[in-house]
Amino acid sequence: MSKVSFRNDYSILMHPAVYAALGEHLHDVHVGYGRDEESEQARTMVRDLFGLKNDSEVHFLAGGTQTNMVALSYILKDYQAVIACSSGHINVHEAGAVEASGHKILVSPGVNGKLSAAEVEKIVLAHPDEHVVEPKAIYISDSTETGTVYTKEELLALRKVANQYGLYLFLDGARLGAALTSEANDLSPKDIGALVDAFYLGGTKNGLPFGEALVLIHPDFKNSFLRHVKARGAMLAKGYALGIMFKAILNDGLYFDLARKANSSAKKLLAVLEDEGYVPLPSPTNQVFCAFPNSLAMGLIGEFGCELWEKRKDSTVIRFVTSYETSKEDILVLHEFLKNHR
Amino acid sequence: MSKVSFRNDYSILMHPAVYAALGEHLHDVHVGYGRDEESEQARTMVRDLFGLKNDSEVHFLAGGTQTNMVALSYILKDYQAVIACSSGHINVHEAGAVEASGHKILVSPGVNGKLSAAEVEKIVLAHPDEHVVEPKAIYISDSTETGTVYTKEELLALRKVANQYGLYLFLDGARLGAALTSEANDLSPKDIGALVDAFYLGGTKNGLPFGEALVLIHPDFKNSFLRHVKARGAMLAKGYALGIMFKAILNDGLYFDLARKANSSAKKLLAVLEDEGYVPLPSPTNQVFCAFPNSLAMGLIGEFGCELWEKRKDSTVIRFVTSYETSKEDILVLHEFLKNHR
Amino acid sequence: MSKVSFRNDYSILMHPAVYAALGEHLHDVHVGYGRDEESEQARTMVRDLFGLKNDSEVHFLAGGTQTNMVALSYILKDYQAVIACSSGHINVHEAGAVEASGHKILVSPGVNGKLSAAEVEKIVLAHPDEHVVEPKAIYISDSTETGTVYTKEELLALRKVANQYGLYLFLDGARLGAALTSEANDLSPKDIGALVDAFYLGGTKNGLPFGEALVLIHPDFKNSFLRHVKARGAMLAKGYALGIMFKAILNDGLYFDLARKANSSAKKLLAVLEDEGYVPLPSPTNQVFCAFPNSLAMGLIGEFGCELWEKRKDSTVIRFVTSYETSKEDILVLHEFLKNHR
Amino acid sequence: MSKVSFRNDYSILMHPAVYAALGEHLHDVHVGYGRDEESEQARTMVRDLFGLKNDSEVHFLAGGTQTNMVALSYILKDYQAVIACSSGHINVHEAGAVEASGHKILVSPGVNGKLSAAEVEKIVLAHPDEHVVEPKAIYISDSTETGTVYTKEELLALRKVANQYGLYLFLDGARLGAALTSEANDLSPKDIGALVDAFYLGGTKNGLPFGEALVLIHPDFKNSFLRHVKARGAMLAKGYALGIMFKAILNDGLYFDLARKANSSAKKLLAVLEDEGYVPLPSPTNQVFCAFPNSLAMGLIGEFGCELWEKRKDSTVIRFVTSYETSKEDILVLHEFLKNHR
Repeated sequence: MSKVSFRNDYSILMHPAVYAALGEHLHDVHVGYGRDEESEQARTMVRDLFGLKNDSEVHFLAGGTQTNMVALSYILKDYQAVIACSSGHINVHEAGAVEASGHKILVSPGVNGKLSAAEVEKIVLAHPDEHVVEPKAIYISDSTETGTVYTKEELLALRKVANQYGLYLFLDGARLGAALTSEANDLSPKDIGALVDAFYLGGTKNGLPFGEALVLIHPDFKNSFLRHVKARGAMLAKGYALGIMFKAILNDGLYFDLARKANSSAKKLLAVLEDEGYVPLPSPTNQVFCAFPNSLAMGLIGEFGCELWEKRKDSTVIRFVTSYETSKEDILVLHEFLKNHR
Repeated sequence: MSKVSFRNDYSILMHPAVYAALGEHLHDVHVGYGRDEESEQARTMVRDLFGLKNDSEVHFLAGGTQTNMVALSYILKDYQAVIACSSGHINVHEAGAVEASGHKILVSPGVNGKLSAAEVEKIVLAHPDEHVVEPKAIYISDSTETGTVYTKEELLALRKVANQYGLYLFLDGARLGAALTSEANDLSPKDIGALVDAFYLGGTKNGLPFGEALVLIHPDFKNSFLRHVKARGAMLAKGYALGIMFKAILNDGLYFDLARKANSSAKKLLAVLEDEGYVPLPSPTNQVFCAFPNSLAMGLIGEFGCELWEKRKDSTVIRFVTSYETSKEDILVLHEFLKNHR
Repeated sequence: MSKVSFRNDYSILMHPAVYAALGEHLHDVHVGYGRDEESEQARTMVRDLFGLKNDSEVHFLAGGTQTNMVALSYILKDYQAVIACSSGHINVHEAGAVEASGHKILVSPGVNGKLSAAEVEKIVLAHPDEHVVEPKAIYISDSTETGTVYTKEELLALRKVANQYGLYLFLDGARLGAALTSEANDLSPKDIGALVDAFYLGGTKNGLPFGEALVLIHPDFKNSFLRHVKARGAMLAKGYALGIMFKAILNDGLYFDLARKANSSAKKLLAVLEDEGYVPLPSPTNQVFCAFPNSLAMGLIGEFGCELWEKRKDSTVIRFVTSYETSKEDILVLHEFLKNHR
Repeated sequence: MSKVSFRNDYSILMHPAVYAALGEHLHDVHVGYGRDEESEQARTMVRDLFGLKNDSEVHFLAGGTQTNMVALSYILKDYQAVIACSSGHINVHEAGAVEASGHKILVSPGVNGKLSAAEVEKIVLAHPDEHVVEPKAIYISDSTETGTVYTKEELLALRKVANQYGLYLFLDGARLGAALTSEANDLSPKDIGALVDAFYLGGTKNGLPFGEALVLIHPDFKNSFLRHVKARGAMLAKGYALGIMFKAILNDGLYFDLARKANSSAKKLLAVLEDEGYVPLPSPTNQVFCAFPNSLAMGLIGEFGCELWEKRKDSTVIRFVTSYETSKEDILVLHEFLKNHR
C-alpha cells in the first residue's frame, strides 16, 4: 500500500495549529462541561461567522453521527419523524442512530444526493393523520454524501416548504467547509445562518481530532438542551478542549483555507482522471466518485485506500477523498499509477 | 479566586506525556474508527494489565456517562434493569442517561457509597414476576462517588450474588486509578479482570483530555458491540487518537503514578483539615469531604472552586478533589486560608 | 379455595349493564379508531362530569399501565422526569414502563402513599442543572396504592407547587371512583377537572372489561396525541367498543354507585377485622391492609386469593380488595373463617 | 351514506358467538393477567391448530400494531433492524411504532406486497459492518397489505434465507384467516407453525372486538416476554376476556368459516366490478383494489365508506373490504350503484 491515501478526510490527527493551541493550555485550570471562557470565545466566533446573535446557541459535540442524533432527538417529539434523502448520512451510515433514538426517517430518492422542496411536500401530504408519523424536520447535508452542494435557490425553496408546513430545517455540515468554498457554491455563511433552524459546522473532517459545532437558531430550541446532551452521553467533561480547538481552527480563516485546499486537490484529481479517459461523476467538493473496470478499481482500493462505493455489472465505482494534507505529489503518484495500469 | 483549585480532577487538559505522544502522529495516515494499530496496541496493554485474554474486548469511548450508558444499554434487554447504590453516578449525576436508554435503575441506600451483596439479593427477591422489571446487572464504581473503595471481600461477595442470580457485574472505573493505588485497596488489576463482567478504566480523570477504556469480559458480550456504539453516537472517526493516548498513559506505569500522586495530595489535605480541627469523612482516595460552618464553606467554594456537596442545618459539606497536578504549595495555600479564617 | 375472592377488583369480567350495551351494537357499522359517535358521546359525558369544556381532550385507552406510560411519555420531553411517591404504581408495579419509554422517575417516600408539595419542591431544588434530569411532571394516584385519598387541601398544595415550578400535575385515577365516593374524600369531580393537568378515570377496576378515560386538560397537550397513541401500540381499531362501554357505565351515576358499593363492603370488612381483634391500616376506600400471624395470613391468601403485601418479622400484611360484586355473604364467609382460625 | 359499508373488516363489534361466550362469564371470578384457565385452554387450541408443542408460547394482545411493536422490540436488540416490504403495515400504517421502539425498518419494494428471499439477501449483504444497522428479523404479512398471499414456495425460500443469515422470520397474521382460506393459498396452519419463528393470528379483523394471538416459536424467545409486554403497556388486567373470546372464535372452525365468508363475498364483488367493465387488481382475499374515474371513486367512497388508496392522474384507486357480515344484498346494492353511475 502506498503512503498516499485517498480514503477519507479523517485520516490525519489534527492540523498543527490546533495542536499548538492545545499545547498553550497544558497546565491551566479550566471550568468543565463547556462553561469555560475558551468555549465562550469560540461560540462568539461561530455566531459572528454565520451572522447570528446571542440568542442562537452554540454547542460543541464530538462527532457527526452523535451531533445528528442528539440534535434530531432534541428537535423531534416522540411521534415525529425527519425527512431525508435516501442517500442521507442519517439513513445509511449511522447504524440506525436516529431510529434508535425513537424516530422514523421518511426517505425520498433525491437527485444527486440532494432533497428537493417538492419531495418534502409530497411526503408531508402523504402523512396527514394519526395512522402515520408526523413529519416535523427536514435533514439535508451540505456538501452531500455524494459531494454535491446546495444552491441558494434550492435552500430557499426548502426554507419555504419548511415554513409552509411548520417543519424545522436541519443542515448537517460535517463538510460545510468544503461546500462553502466550492466553486459551485453561491451560499454565504450568513445565508446558512439565515435560512436553517439548526446546523453544525464540522471539525472532524477539516483539521480537528474531533469536534462539531452545533448551532441552534430556532426559538423553539432554547429549553434544556444541555440536559439532553448529557442524557445522550454526549457531554465532554473537558469541554474546554473543544473551545480551544475551535478557536484555533476558526482563527484568521484557517478553517476555510483548509477546505479550499482539499477542494483544489480534488479538482486536480478530477483532471487527472479525465486525462486518463475516465468519467468521474460531477462533484464540486473534496469527494470524487468514478467508475473503473473491476480489477483496476480493486487495485486503486488496495493502493490508495479508496472506498468501494457501488458495484455495477462491469465496473466498480470508488470514492476518492482529498483533504488539506493532500499534496501535488500525491496526485502525481495517483497519475503514475493510472498510467501504469492503462 | 485563587489560582489553586480543588474543584475536580478534570480541570487540567492532559498530561504532557500524552500531549507529546499526539505530537508524534501529526502527519501520519491512520485507519478510522478504532481499527488502527495504535488502538490495537493499546488494547493489548489494557488486557495485559488486567490479566485478560484476547477474547475480552477493549473499546475506547469518550467519557464516563457515555460509557456507562452505552455499556448498560448493550448489556440489558429492553425489560431489564440495573441495580445500583442510591448515590451511584448513574443514578444522580447522569441526567437520566440510563433511563433515557430505556432501563430502570433499582436503587438501594448502600453504606459509604458502596452496594452490598445483601442489598442486591433483597432487590432481586423483590422482583419475581412480570409486574416488575427484571434485575439483570449490578452497577458499582471503584472508587465510589464518595471516594471509598471496595475490598476484595466485598467484590467477591458481589460476584457470588451475581452468579447466584444470573446478574452481570459492571464496574465503573472512572477513578479506578485512585482506587487501585489507595492505601485502603487490596484488589489487584487482575482481581478486577477476574471478578467483573465488564468495567472501564477512566482516562478523563487521570491524565487524558477524554477517553475511557471499556472492557467486555463476559462471553455474552461478543455480538455487534460496535454497531451499538455507533448507534449511540459514541464512535469516534479518529479513534486512533484514543489509541495513541492510552498507549502513552499506560506506558511504564504512568497511569498509576498519576493516581498515586493525587491520592498522596489528598492525604496531605486531610492532615491539614484535621490539624485545623475539622473532621473530614473517611476517604482513602483523591476526594475529600468535610463539613464547615456555612460561611467558611462558601469562602472555600469561592476561593478554591470546591463543590457544595450537602447543605446541613448549621454546616455545609464541601468536596475537595486533588489530581496529579496538585502540589505541596497548593496544600499550603489552603492551609493558610484556613488559618486566616479560624 | 373458597368461591369468595378478595384478591382484587378486576376479577369479574364486566357489569351486566355494560354487557347489555355492547349487545345493542352487535351488527352496527362503526367508524374505527375512536372517531365514532358513541365515543364522541362518551367523551361529552366525561367532560360534563368533570366540568370541562370542549378544549379538554378525552381519549379512551385499554389499561392503567398503558395509560400512565402513554400519557407521561407524551407529556415529557426526552430529558425530563416525573416525580412520584416511592410506592407509586408507576414506580413499583409497571415493570419499568415509564423508564422503558425513556424517563426517570424521581421518587420520594411520601406519607400513607401520598406525595406532598414539600417533597415535590425538595426534588425540584435538588435538580437545578444539566447534570441531572429536569423534573417536569408530578404523578399521583387517587385513591393511592395503599387505598388512601387526597384531600382538597393536599391537592391544592400540589397544584400550587406545580405552578410555582412549571410542572404538570398528572393524576392516575385507576380507582378514582373509589376515591371520590370515599367518606374521607372532600374533592368533587369538578375539583379534579380544575386542579390537575391530565388524569384518567379508570374503567377496568370498576365495571368495564378494560378501558380508561384519559383527559388532557393543559393547553400544551393539544398536538398530535393520537399519533403518539398509535406509535405506542395503544390505539384500538374498534374504538367504538370503548365509547359504548363508557356511555353505559357513566349513565345515571352507575360508575359511582358501583364504587360506593365497593367502599361500603370494605367498611364492613374493616369492622369484621376489628371485631376479631386485628388492626387494619386506615383505608377509606376498597383496599384493606392488615397484618396477621404468618400462618393465618397464608390461610387467608389460600382461601380468598388475598395478595401478600409485606413480610414482617412475626407477621404478614395482606391486602383485601372489595368490588361492587362483593356481597354481605362474602363478608360473612370471611368472618366465619376468621372465627374458625382464632 | 348507504348502510352498506365496504370500508374495512373492523366495523362490526364482534361475532354473536363471541358475545354469547362473554355472557357466560359475567359473574365468575378469574385470575388476572392471562394466568387463568380460559386463556390456558385457548392457548392449547392455538398450539393444536398450528401443530405446535408446549414449548411454543402463546400470548394474547390487543391489536395489530401493538403486537407487531411488542414482538419486534422483544426479538431485536437495540442495534438490530427488521427487513420489510415498503408497503408493509409496520412501515406505513403504524405511525412509526417500530422506530419509536428503537429499531430501523430496512425496506425493499417487493412485488404485489410480498417480500422475496432475494430482496432479503440483498439487504443483508448491504449491511456488513458497524456503520450500518444489523438486519436480524424479516417481517411479512399474510395476507399482505394489498390482499395477496404467500405461496408455500415463497415462504420456504424466506425460511431458507433466514436460516442462511441467522434472521428471525416474523409473520403478521392480522388477516391470516383470509390468507389461509384463500383459493390462492397452498399453506396449511401447520406449515405456518413449522416455517416461521413467530407470528400472530388476528382476531380484530375476524370476529373479535379486539385481540391477537401471538405465537413465539423460536427457542430464543423464552425469556421474560411477559415483563416486556407489561413494560410496553400491553398487558390486560382482565386477560381472561381474551381467553374466553379466542376459545369461542376458534371453536369448531368458526374462525376460518368467517374468513371464508369474507373471501367469498370479495369474489362476488370482484365479479360485479368486472361485469361493469372495471379492472380490479388481482386479490385472492377480502380486500379488493380497483381504479375508477375520479368522480365515481369519490362517489363510492361517500356511499360505501371505501378507503382512497392511490391518486393517479386520471383515476383513483379505492379499496373495498368485505367481512363475514357482508351479504349478497350488500353486493347487490353496490352493483346497483355502479349501474346507476355508468
